[in-house]
Order: sequence, then C-alpha cells, then structure tokens
Amino acid sequence: MKEILENARKLMKGYCRVCPVCDGRACAGEVPGMGGLGTASAFKANLAALAAYRFNMRLVHDVKKPQIRTTILGKSLSLPVLAAPIGGVSFNMGGGVSEAAYIEALIQGSLAKGTLGCTGDGVPEFIHQTGFQAIQAAGGMGIPFIKPWEDDELFDKLERAQATGADIIGMDLDAAGLVTLRKMGRPVSPKSVTELKRIRAAVSGKFILKGVMTVADALLAAEAGVDAIVVSNHGGRVLDFARGAAEVLPAIHAAVKGKLTVLADGGVRSGGDVLKLLALGADAVMIGRPFSVAAVGGLKTGVEQYLDKIMLELEQCMVLTGTASVADVDPAILTDS
Amino acid sequence: MKEILENARKLMKGYCRVCPVCDGRACAGEVPGMGGLGTASAFKANLAALAAYRFNMRLVHDVKKPQIRTTILGKSLSLPVLAAPIGGVSFNMGGGVSEAAYIEALIQGSLAKGTLGCTGDGVPEFIHQTGFQAIQAAGGMGIPFIKPWEDDELFDKLERAQATGADIIGMDLDAAGLVTLRKMGRPVSPKSVTELKRIRAAVSGKFILKGVMTVADALLAAEAGVDAIVVSNHGGRVLDFARGAAEVLPAIHAAVKGKLTVLADGGVRSGGDVLKLLALGADAVMIGRPFSVAAVGGLKTGVEQYLDKIMLELEQCMVLTGTASVADVDPAILTDS
Amino acid sequence: MKEILENARKLMKGYCRVCPVCDGRACAGEVPGMGGLGTASAFKANLAALAAYRFNMRLVHDVKKPQIRTTILGKSLSLPVLAAPIGGVSFNMGGGVSEAAYIEALIQGSLAKGTLGCTGDGVPEFIHQTGFQAIQAAGGMGIPFIKPWEDDELFDKLERAQATGADIIGMDLDAAGLVTLRKMGRPVSPKSVTELKRIRAAVSGKFILKGVMTVADALLAAEAGVDAIVVSNHGGRVLDFARGAAEVLPAIHAAVKGKLTVLADGGVRSGGDVLKLLALGADAVMIGRPFSVAAVGGLKTGVEQYLDKIMLELEQCMVLTGTASVADVDPAILTDS
Amino acid sequence: MKEILENARKLMKGYCRVCPVCDGRACAGEVPGMGGLGTASAFKANLAALAAYRFNMRLVHDVKKPQIRTTILGKSLSLPVLAAPIGGVSFNMGGGVSEAAYIEALIQGSLAKGTLGCTGDGVPEFIHQTGFQAIQAAGGMGIPFIKPWEDDELFDKLERAQATGADIIGMDLDAAGLVTLRKMGRPVSPKSVTELKRIRAAVSGKFILKGVMTVADALLAAEAGVDAIVVSNHGGRVLDFARGAAEVLPAIHAAVKGKLTVLADGGVRSGGDVLKLLALGADAVMIGRPFSVAAVGGLKTGVEQYLDKIMLELEQCMVLTGTASVADVDPAILTDS
Repeated sequence: MKEILENARKLMKGYCRVCPVCDGRACAGEVPGMGGLGTASAFKANLAALAAYRFNMRLVHDVKKPQIRTTILGKSLSLPVLAAPIGGVSFNMGGGVSEAAYIEALIQGSLAKGTLGCTGDGVPEFIHQTGFQAIQAAGGMGIPFIKPWEDDELFDKLERAQATGADIIGMDLDAAGLVTLRKMGRPVSPKSVTELKRIRAAVSGKFILKGVMTVADALLAAEAGVDAIVVSNHGGRVLDFARGAAEVLPAIHAAVKGKLTVLADGGVRSGGDVLKLLALGADAVMIGRPFSVAAVGGLKTGVEQYLDKIMLELEQCMVLTGTASVADVDPAILTDS
Repeated sequence: MKEILENARKLMKGYCRVCPVCDGRACAGEVPGMGGLGTASAFKANLAALAAYRFNMRLVHDVKKPQIRTTILGKSLSLPVLAAPIGGVSFNMGGGVSEAAYIEALIQGSLAKGTLGCTGDGVPEFIHQTGFQAIQAAGGMGIPFIKPWEDDELFDKLERAQATGADIIGMDLDAAGLVTLRKMGRPVSPKSVTELKRIRAAVSGKFILKGVMTVADALLAAEAGVDAIVVSNHGGRVLDFARGAAEVLPAIHAAVKGKLTVLADGGVRSGGDVLKLLALGADAVMIGRPFSVAAVGGLKTGVEQYLDKIMLELEQCMVLTGTASVADVDPAILTDS
Repeated sequence: MKEILENARKLMKGYCRVCPVCDGRACAGEVPGMGGLGTASAFKANLAALAAYRFNMRLVHDVKKPQIRTTILGKSLSLPVLAAPIGGVSFNMGGGVSEAAYIEALIQGSLAKGTLGCTGDGVPEFIHQTGFQAIQAAGGMGIPFIKPWEDDELFDKLERAQATGADIIGMDLDAAGLVTLRKMGRPVSPKSVTELKRIRAAVSGKFILKGVMTVADALLAAEAGVDAIVVSNHGGRVLDFARGAAEVLPAIHAAVKGKLTVLADGGVRSGGDVLKLLALGADAVMIGRPFSVAAVGGLKTGVEQYLDKIMLELEQCMVLTGTASVADVDPAILTDS
Repeated sequence: MKEILENARKLMKGYCRVCPVCDGRACAGEVPGMGGLGTASAFKANLAALAAYRFNMRLVHDVKKPQIRTTILGKSLSLPVLAAPIGGVSFNMGGGVSEAAYIEALIQGSLAKGTLGCTGDGVPEFIHQTGFQAIQAAGGMGIPFIKPWEDDELFDKLERAQATGADIIGMDLDAAGLVTLRKMGRPVSPKSVTELKRIRAAVSGKFILKGVMTVADALLAAEAGVDAIVVSNHGGRVLDFARGAAEVLPAIHAAVKGKLTVLADGGVRSGGDVLKLLALGADAVMIGRPFSVAAVGGLKTGVEQYLDKIMLELEQCMVLTGTASVADVDPAILTDS
C-alpha cells in the first residue's frame, strides 16, 4: 500500500498531496482538483463529524470472527462498502492515468474483492462514457451515477446507463450546485418531488438518490419512490459550510428506517469509520477520495489492496467493540461525549 | 480574480498579505494596517461567529433561479451587499494606488454592478474629501460615512456630505474608540440619545448608524430616530475581545425588526456568508477588507469581479438551500449545532 | 515601547523571547526562566480564562472621560494596577540588568505613574534585600512580599520588611510549592489558619495573602484576618494544571465581597484584561511578566511606558463599554458565551 | 534526566523523537514503533482526558509532608506507580539496547525505588522469555503480563509466568486486537466470562486483567473473579478512536469499588497526572512510554531517575492540593469545568 501511495503522490502532483491523513486542509479550495470548495469547511466537517464519535472498547465477549458480508439492494457484498462515483482524472487528479484505465481499475478492483464500484458523470462526455463502458465490460456489475441535468439530457443518459446492463442506477443530486459544471454551461439543478417521480419511473431497476442531508429531503425522497438515499454533501465540493454526513445521519436514519436503504458518504478513511457510520444507521457506506488515490497509484491492485485494508480494519474494530455482524451494529458501541 | 489578488499582494506588501482566507491571523495587531487591534480577537470573532453557523443542504425543491435583487432604504440593489466605508490607502494599505483612484474604483465599480459603495472619513482631510468627490462625480450614488467627531466638526461634515448629492448619510459610531485618531489629536466619542437625535435632525435624507453591537444600543438607536443600523465591531479595529457581528445579530434583529433596517458587517468573505447574515436577520450586508483588496489590486475591474464572484456564490448557496429570494430567507437553512 | 521590547529581547535571550503575545507557549516548562511549570497549562489557563470573557461593545451613552483612579488598602492609585512581585533577574531573566537596577526601576517607575510596585523574595538573599532597599529608598512606597518560609525565617523577614517603612506587607503563599526553592534546600510550606493568624498578628500594617484559588481558602483567609487576598496561581509556575485566576475570581468575589479587598493576578496583558478582572470582581489587578520585560528592556522608562499603555487601553475599553469608573464596573459589560 | 533523554533520542531515532511533551502527535500511526494506531486518536485521548481535569489549588491547610506510600494487591509500594508492560525493543524502540538489558533495567530500577515493573509478551519469543528471566532474577519481584493467546499457548505461558516466582500475574486483554501480532499469524482474542474464569483458576496468585474500558466489562471481570483490572486502551495502539482512560475511570471506579483493585494506564507523564487518576478512583497507576524512554536512555539509572521525578512531583501536587495521603484522595481537588 505504501508503494501505491507513493506512486499516487507522484502522479497526482499539483492535484493531491496524498497526505498521511486525508482531511481537506492542504487542498482547501482546490476545485477542480481533489479539495473542498472555498474554505473546505464541508470537507472537514465530514471528518470532524466522524471523529466526534468514539468507540467504547469491549473485550469480555466471544466475538472472535465477526461477519462483514452484507446484502444491499439485492446484491450480496463482501463488505458494506462501495467505491463512490468520482470522475475527471485529467482535471481533478492530474491525468497521470487515463480516464478509462482509472474507472476500469475501480470497477474491476471492487468486483475482484466482492463489492461494487460506482461511476461518475460530468463534462466532458468521456467521463460517463468510459464509466458506462467499464460497467458494460463487467456485465453490468457496477453502479452508474448520472448528474441532475435538465430536461432530455437527463432521461437520455438514464436510458444509456441502463443499457450497460446495470440494474442499479444512481443520481448525485448533490451535484446540483457544482461550480465547475455551471461554468462549463451545462446546467444541473435541484429536483422537485414531481420531477423525482418522473425520473424514478424512467429507471426499471433500483434507483439511488445521492445528496440527502436533511430529514425533510429524506422523507420527500421516500415519497418519490427511490430505493436508497446516500447521505452526502458531495465531499464538500458544492456548498462550503454544509454539515458533515455523520452529523445528520442518525436523524435521517430514524426518519426513514424500514422505508429506504440508507447509504452514507463523506470522510470515511478506515474500517473504523465504516463501523461508525453503520452504528449511526447506514446500511452501507461509500468511500471516495481514498479509492481515487488507490486507483491512480495502483490501478486494480491499488483498489484491491485498499479494500483489503478496510476489511482488516473493519473486522478488528468489530472484535474490539464486540460487534458480531455488520447487519446488526449496536449504536451503543459509540459515544459522542 | 487571481491576477487581481496577486497584484494586490504586491501593492499592499507590508500592509496586507492577501491570505487565501482573510481571517485576521497574519496581520494581528496591525493598526494602522489591515489587521485587528491587539490580539485581533474581535476580527477573528467576526469570522468565527459566521463559521459557527452551517447550512442545511436542501435539494428536493424547485428553486432553480433564485432572486438576489432587493430594496434597501429606498434603493433597488442588484444584490444585498454594500462596500463598507474604509479609507486611508497610504497608511492602511501601503499606498500602491492613490486615495482618489481607490475610492473612485469602489464607488464606480459598485455602481456598475448595481449596488452602492460607502466612503470613509478620518485623518488626514483628503480621506473624506476624495470620498465626497467620488460620490459627487457619481451623481450622489454612494453613501458617505462620517466619524463621530465632537462638536461643530461633526455638523460641518454632515452638511458637506449632503452637498455631494447623497441622500443616505452614515456615521460609524464604532470609530469612537479608534486608537489611530486619538493619537492624532482628533477626538471622536460615543453619543447619547440626545446627541444622536440632534445629529439625526441635521440629516435630511436617510441616516445609518454603524457600530451597534447590543440590543440596548439598537433600541436607543431606534429611539433616536435613525433609519438603519449596522451591526459591526468596526472590523475588530477598536475593541479587542469585542463579540462578532453574527453572534449578536439575531437578538438585535428580534428587538428592532419592523422598526429599523438592519445591516451587518464583519468577516463576510463569500456569498455563503452573505446568505448566513440574511438568515440571521440582516436586510443587507457590508463587506470591507475584500473590497479594499479588490480595489487596490484591480481598481474598478477588481471591484466588479469581486461582486460577480459574490453574486455567483450567493445564487448557488440559495439553490443549495432552497432559498427563492433574498427578501425572505428562512432561518432554518442554518444550524448552529 | 517597541524599542524597549527589542532591547528586552536581546537582554533576555535564552530566558524570554518577548513574544508578540505573551502566552506561555514558547517558554513552556522553563522554570527557572519566565515560563510556566511542566506543560505550562496553568500559565496558559490564565490567558484562556481571560480570553473566554468578551466585551459587549456599547456606544450610545455619554461616558467620554472615564475615571480610572481608585483607592486600595488606603492608598490612592492612579489606576487599579500594581506591579506583581517577581525577582531573580539572573536566573529567571538572563541577568542583562542587575537585580538592584531592575527592582529600583519597578518601584520608581510605578511611583512615577502614581501606583505601587511589589518586590519579591527567594534564594539567594539579595532578591529580598535589594527589594527592601528599593522600597526603603522610596520612603516605604512599595509592597514587599515574603515567601511562606517555615519557622523563624518567616517572622524575621516580616520584621525586616516592615523596617523598610512599607505599611502594606504581602506573603505569596502560592510559592509554597515552588520547585526551585525546595531544590535549593530552603523549604516553604502551606499554612493553617492558626499559623496565618500568628503571621497576621506579626504585621502592624495591612497584610495581603497571595495565592488564593478557591472559595474555601478565601473564607479561611478572611477568618485569619488578612486585609486582602490575591487570586493567583503564581503565574502557572508551581502547579501544572491549576485553574486560571479569571475562572475562579467570580465565585471568590461573591464569597468575600465586603469582607476583603480582592486583587487578581494572572495573564493580564492589556487594559482590556484589567477591565475584565474588575468586572469579574477584583478591586485591582497585578501584572507580572510584562512589567519584568519592560523593566529589563527600559528600566524606569520602560515601566512608565508600559503603565501609560495600560492606562490608555483601559480608558478606551471603558469608553467602548460605557464604564464611567473603575470603582463601579458592571459585570454585564462581559459575556462568557 | 536531561542527559538520559538526549541519549534516548539518539538511540531511538526513527522510532521515538522523545518530544518535550509525549503526546502522540509526531509519531501518529507508527505501529510498530512508539506511536498510536491510525490517526493516534486513542493515544491523544488519553492525554486529552487527563488534561481536561484541572486542580483546585489549596494552600490554607497543614499538609506539609504528604504520604505517598501505598499497598496494592498485598504489596507495599513506595508510590502508587507501576512500570507498564512494554516489550519489543528492536521493532518498537529502535534496538539501541538489547531486550534483556532493557527489561532488566525496568525491573531492577523499579525495585530499587520500591515499586514493581511489569514485563510484556509478544512475538518473537524472546520478549516474554527475557521478561520472565528478569523477574526470576529479581526473586519474583515483578509482574509478568501474558497476551490473550488462544487455547494451550495461553495456559502454557501462564504456568511459565508463575514459575518465575511472581505471585501476581497479568493479562493484557487489550492486546486482543493488536495489528502487528495478527499479521505475524499468532492470534490473540477477546475472552468470554467463562474463559476468564478458567484463566483465573489457572493462576494461584493474584490476577490482573488489563484493558477494561467500560462499566460492563468491569462488572464481568469482577464476576470472573479477577483481583484487579487496569483501565487502559493499550496506549492507543489497538483501536483508533477509543476513549481515554481518565474519561471512563470514574464510572468504572463507581461500579466496582470495594470489589476490585482498580489500576489505570494511559497518558501519565507527571506526578500531577498520577494524582489526577487517584482522584478519579484509581488505586495505583501504570506508566508506559516514559519508562521505556528512560530505560533505553539510561537503563536502571534512567528508570530510577524517572521515578524520583514522579515522586517529587506527586508530593508537590499533594501539598498544593492539601492531599495528605495517596490512600485517600478527595475527588474535589479536581475540576472538569
């Protein structure tokens, strides 16, 4: 892993410093790039919100081999972790590898370890195109995410996403305020419940709505009939001073549990962070920047090794908190005092 | 904008470092200069108070084109932002441009983008003189601010300010403790309600009182008959360990809403900060140092580009919080937890 | 003042860095020297406790010329500030000036500006000897402080202190844990109420007990018949992780007001800090390190200029908070939120 | 002591920087090495939890010679401090001294000053072997700690530990998640109450269970019949984001007082820290890294000098808080506000 990170540090020079802890300080304001928008407050909030929860260490029990396999939206996954949709290698990551090589590494590396990678969307066109190709090449085993374009562009893309064979489609609504896209003249926008219903109806498989940060939006998403939401502030790249995902997750989980699958995304760096989000109500989590760094630095191998690290850490944290299964994580393993 | 900032960095050398985030750390104690007084606690408090409020990101709605135009004291403005009164280019900003060029850029740049600039006062005389000239040249489209001088000096200046054609006049009462002026032997002082009434009566147009930081002072200002107050600690330049504007704004707003127009000033750096102050009760905000940097670095163009940036950011934050109009901002878009 | 500080920086090299803000960070653990003991937590706590209180800025009033003169223990002082007892120029401050020159500067500089300086005690003998001489030379106008020695040494020194002509004598009980003295084989110790009564009886003038940090100790001090207490953690030099003076002052003031004169000491750097301690219940304050730096850097002139600075700042803060007199400071000028 | 630290700094180069304050920042993530796991959050939490408690300084009393001798598990100790079990000089500390020289210094230095050292366990075999030899050479005067191995390995080692002559045996259950051991293929694991009872029964002397961080685990430990527990997060080396020992100690103490001897371990650097943990409910404390540094830097002399320092500091803090005996420390000497 150390070699992979060093390689990434070289290839991403000027775009990502591959810091010892990826926390949004060094790259504050670097959009495009890997940073958070403005002061990077929202990026840092994701990490701060996770760090505010700490573990109650428990050792008098018999959980020696915890279960980390889970099922999400009908898919059996080797661990409750998905690679988040991130694209734009050339302008966000320095272009040290091609968009196609990058996204293929993400999809194939995830698959090799028993989970799924998501693909991103944006401008220029090859971002979603290479993503769709990678998923198609994997027999549909990946989740294409579409940005919240206006009018026909959106429905056209949803159709093409389904043509890849994917039976889960996502839309990152949190991109609706993305500075870079608006500057390129390709408007994205918020959606009303009525619009969301129309979008949902256009997807024959499962539909994930990413970018839900309030209980109100979560309830509207449920009303619109989506299958899953992702609690996410888009990695702090759209709204400076947005709250952190782990801050708002518990109330959202309480409001929609049983109705929606709840995913969470933002600031996850280790298996311990995964366990925290599960304890706060997530069914599974998405990880963003660390997968990008691993993919640029080590392609498929990098993605696999990062997943190995996460699995090992997750298991150990479960042992040390007496958590037998990711499907049933006791909130009491955490303290926020 | 990047070029303008770089130019400002050169011209303001030794007076302002044009930091990535203008937060009062690097320049602590630099009065004269661009810093906060003493430990710069009051300067930093303005930023900390704003940062303590964060946004609830909302995306399931139909606010795609928010309204940022507003009307303040009878003036229709393209956005709820005024350029705060700051003078003294030579001793505060390094003298890289002349006082006249600076203040003209501020007044004309603001006008070009549909809002108003304020002019400052102080010692030497040319500070208010160049300000008055710039407003007169703009047909009275600017707001002259007078310091709280003692006796005839004050009334004499108010008269001359009105002679520029301006129909809104301000007094920055928060300058009553200004170290630099007292050292120069030109006393400024607090004013009783009785004095304020006399001052108000001497102004035929609208009158703004700047430097209100408590509910008690706000109520006395209302009693004295002013049209508007500015919640401001004078950029942290008069009282170390004063509170931040955003801290005290909500209670002041609650006490005088409907009676007075409430402006707020202190630590505003981005369109998101503008939206926060509106949500906390301001009708419009003033921005200080960033306008000075933009004016020194790029004259009229600098001011215009800074206003473009603020407008874009404000719109985007409104989209991402579901805020349709600056005239009606829901306090619930903010959290202070 | 700037020159004086630069001179001090040279003379105190290796002992005090004369930092822009004297806050205990750079010199942490430097005892002997000018630092706080151990992690310097108690030194820093003095500053943090003061910083936690902030001012409510008030400008609509008629306090244009506030009164800073006060009377403490029968002495009329030009401002409510005393120079705290600090000795040991050679091992604490680098020895750039002699002990005699230093303490004479402190006593004479204080007198010249209308207040009193205190002298310290310790090992070697010349610390208290030079202090006693300086007070005697000033006709008894100074306050000698004696350490809490055991047995005859204490009573012997109290007698010699009174022989200087001073009619106020102090004991810094907070020195009872001083590491440096114990290592030199000269034990100091806590005192019971019985012992304190005997000590009090040995002093014919007023008696000040320094080092009271709890309500319980303050009540016992009153029971022992002392005239005044100094709320002080000995500049953070005896007990790492002691609380800050400004933290404990309000409760102590509430418990003994009307019974004892209450002085406070710790972390005062500016006139604003003086005003804060008065608002929290002190009748006057002591300032330590800044006087030492001023005395080493500029002898009598240094002490005078530092007092001028404090007086100017105190007046300005009183104007900006609407405080008419130091004898009657409204606690409501502060907020601790 | 200064020389010893400098020597340690040389010998531990690349493994420990021997920082002025040992706080886990510089070495974050260095496992193996001397750091905390991951972000070192749990290492830092130990220090932060202690720092959050501060002393109420008391000086009006007659505690001039406090008592620091105590009795723990039937042993009379000169102070309530034990050297914690740490091994692995070569991979954790740089190998500047041999494992045997290191552990002998720890055991003999502790004994020379009237207390006991603990020995560690791990991979390779010589870690526990040299520890057992050092205790045997000291006539059983030391406490061997065994890791929570699975099956026969555990019972075999317990037997060999008792063969050293030691009549107190410990198990660091907190090692159950140790990354380094698992990677070496030597599994350690949590234990159920049933397993703990079997382990307890295999020890004829006293048995200490290390790694209890919740009230629930403490009650289960009591049920299993252990004699003492150590509240410890394993120096922050097994679970990133575990809580600090001083945070959880009061509740654990309240739950098992009178039933179990309670030791605490984590972040203790000074005599003041020792006193804090006693005030929070510990009967005695363990100190880890500082002993390792002292032993590497000065062997037996280093350990003795560090113990001298701790004793002096402990006495002084007791004087300054009016604490007469370590056997009866008033919780009210602390404040957590």
